[in-house]
Amino acid sequence: MTLNPDGGHYEQLFSKAAQRVAHQSSILVDLPNETPETISLAFGDADPHIFPAQQITASVAGLLAEDVDAVMNYAPADARLLAVVQQRLERRGVSVDPSQLMITYGSSQVLGLLPQIFVEPGDTIIVEGPTFLGAVEYFAAAGAHIETIPVGPQGMDIEALAACLLDLQHRNIRPKFIYTIPTFQNPTGTLMPAIARARLVALAAEFGVLVVEDDAYGDLHFKEHNSPSMLTLPGSEWVLHIGTFSKILAPGIRMAWAYGPPAVMKRLRAFKSESDCGTFVTRLVSYMAQDGWLDRHISSLRSHYAAKSTAMVAAIAEHFPKDVRTNVPEGGFFVYGYLPQDLPAVPLNDIAIAHGASFLPGTTGYANGQGTHEMRIAFSFQTTPNLVTGITRIGAAMRELRARNS
Amino acid sequence: MTLNPDGGHYEQLFSKAAQRVAHQSSILVDLPNETPETISLAFGDADPHIFPAQQITASVAGLLAEDVDAVMNYAPADARLLAVVQQRLERRGVSVDPSQLMITYGSSQVLGLLPQIFVEPGDTIIVEGPTFLGAVEYFAAAGAHIETIPVGPQGMDIEALAACLLDLQHRNIRPKFIYTIPTFQNPTGTLMPAIARARLVALAAEFGVLVVEDDAYGDLHFKEHNSPSMLTLPGSEWVLHIGTFSKILAPGIRMAWAYGPPAVMKRLRAFKSESDCGTFVTRLVSYMAQDGWLDRHISSLRSHYAAKSTAMVAAIAEHFPKDVRTNVPEGGFFVYGYLPQDLPAVPLNDIAIAHGASFLPGTTGYANGQGTHEMRIAFSFQTTPNLVTGITRIGAAMRELRARNS
Repeated sequence: MTLNPDGGHYEQLFSKAAQRVAHQSSILVDLPNETPETISLAFGDADPHIFPAQQITASVAGLLAEDVDAVMNYAPADARLLAVVQQRLERRGVSVDPSQLMITYGSSQVLGLLPQIFVEPGDTIIVEGPTFLGAVEYFAAAGAHIETIPVGPQGMDIEALAACLLDLQHRNIRPKFIYTIPTFQNPTGTLMPAIARARLVALAAEFGVLVVEDDAYGDLHFKEHNSPSMLTLPGSEWVLHIGTFSKILAPGIRMAWAYGPPAVMKRLRAFKSESDCGTFVTRLVSYMAQDGWLDRHISSLRSHYAAKSTAMVAAIAEHFPKDVRTNVPEGGFFVYGYLPQDLPAVPLNDIAIAHGASFLPGTTGYANGQGTHEMRIAFSFQTTPNLVTGITRIGAAMRELRARNS
Repeated sequence: MTLNPDGGHYEQLFSKAAQRVAHQSSILVDLPNETPETISLAFGDADPHIFPAQQITASVAGLLAEDVDAVMNYAPADARLLAVVQQRLERRGVSVDPSQLMITYGSSQVLGLLPQIFVEPGDTIIVEGPTFLGAVEYFAAAGAHIETIPVGPQGMDIEALAACLLDLQHRNIRPKFIYTIPTFQNPTGTLMPAIARARLVALAAEFGVLVVEDDAYGDLHFKEHNSPSMLTLPGSEWVLHIGTFSKILAPGIRMAWAYGPPAVMKRLRAFKSESDCGTFVTRLVSYMAQDGWLDRHISSLRSHYAAKSTAMVAAIAEHFPKDVRTNVPEGGFFVYGYLPQDLPAVPLNDIAIAHGASFLPGTTGYANGQGTHEMRIAFSFQTTPNLVTGITRIGAAMRELRARNS
């Protein structure tokens, strides 16, 4: 028998799920070719100027001085960080059973585990269009069939969802879950109203489908609003909630949480193969949440990002043609734009990059090829002067493309 | 249709692999009931007195001052930490292809991913007996049939392995992998000689079975030795090597690496659902490896643990009955003992705890119920005075149990 470790007989060693990996292809769209000089408004990175570097250094010192053994050795799940998250959820009206809560390495870990827990090839998943395609990539890689529900000015179109669920039921298809970002959605920045949330969770319970509520941006609201977490709504036993410290502390920290039905949490724990997250980082985050520091930090982030959002919206009003329609965000990291027919996003972005600025074409948010005339513009990363310059340059690119066409 | 999110119809949402989770039971043996006053020699925790707290704090400060954006924002795989690991492997004679290397959240993550990649229920896995049962637990939970090869004074009994592989082949069973800890084995502390390693890798290539070389303790040798990593041996294309910063930096940091065949690495990456490890911790570890600091730290760890090992071996010679046979470790964290017939480990440990000290009964290292007259004694965690006191107490427990029996 000839054995070849990279194919042939070697492949027989793999589990069925691992053999499928060989045939996976990506649904992600190629990203624009920015240069180092480009003012990139494409990505939702956090603003590096407000990372709490001093607080992190001081916290590491304090933490290690307090109990180096607890921080650096093996230890069970970090009860302190779980308590921090529990308290934050309870303040939002969620009745928390701690056994249904877990700490994860970023939201990505939960999103990556979902298909392992729910998807056999050919299973149906429902997502928003546009959405965070990084999540959908995980579902598609597992062989899921993706149904896309349009996002309007108030988030996912719930009546379109109801029609989709009914249609699937008529075809004897029970979808595995509905993936939604109801609060300051990525990429549209929209906020789903309370009444739509209630209807969504009621539909999930009626059709026996899990709702995955990705709440990455929920804490970054620019004014008060009354859209509740889906965990507080009737039917919440069908809700898996995902939250993260990425936007309110730092993405590089890679700490997030999941809260959901016991049967789902049991499986998330079983498939989170390395078991608990490390003591060092979990303790660091809980240490930084002490004495209200994290709340004060979040409060300053809200003002900071609100001011940047306002600056971008003003620059857009000044520099974009009037027939480019944009959402005015009430929180989060993004302005979303709808382009007229003569301004397709991909060629526009190429011209914008030649002008020294970039955005994310709408096609990068759809699993079905839509979004050719949509654009996501992030105000999170760049400085305010750069935001204004970037919008000015994209506006110039719009006029240039329009001039070429006429 | 009545829907119940914690069972019944809800279970239908899960993938086949996730449905199996409901029926998993643990192979782990209950651990002794220590009290807070017990001098525990049971667990292989690192010595908290030599955690480099100052260096960690200074490195976090330096790192954040250097480039807070790179450390705290989203970023691709940490090239710096990969380069650190590559260099360390190359110094051991491994010819490294960087595309076959990955950073993971502790060795546990790799061990936990292995069954997802290799195991369908009923598949056969070969492990050492005794071994690190935490790893075997992952394999058993996936429904693997576990074959146990005895560990002698020079590690795994390679002739017993050869006989096992031949027997399995006669029964048309191709095992998925052989899990071995060849260097300062957990729990026996044994060092597999170079010739046995070469034979093991040759057998793996002959029978078409992956070797998983868990090298958690390899850097902690008390004197030079000439047992190479299996990655340097003919047939190394059948070797998946796992190394970790847990023993040489701190377990709470949760950083490890895997190096192996491209097809295996491709699947480890696909199943490591959260993708790269976080920038903060990966950058911290690579920062600490700069300018030879990590090498100097490892050197001091070697002397530190060698001295503790020597103290424990001397205390054992003084306080244990002469018919208790123990391995003298050349590295790692453990002394392993073989008990005479009248001193079974579990009752002995109960008496030891009453005397104020504990060890790990040998049964905790076997998936097949063996090890009733074996014991693992960790010299890693306790201070040297505590080690000596602990051994004295266990020796007294041995005499007490013997007196009861006579």
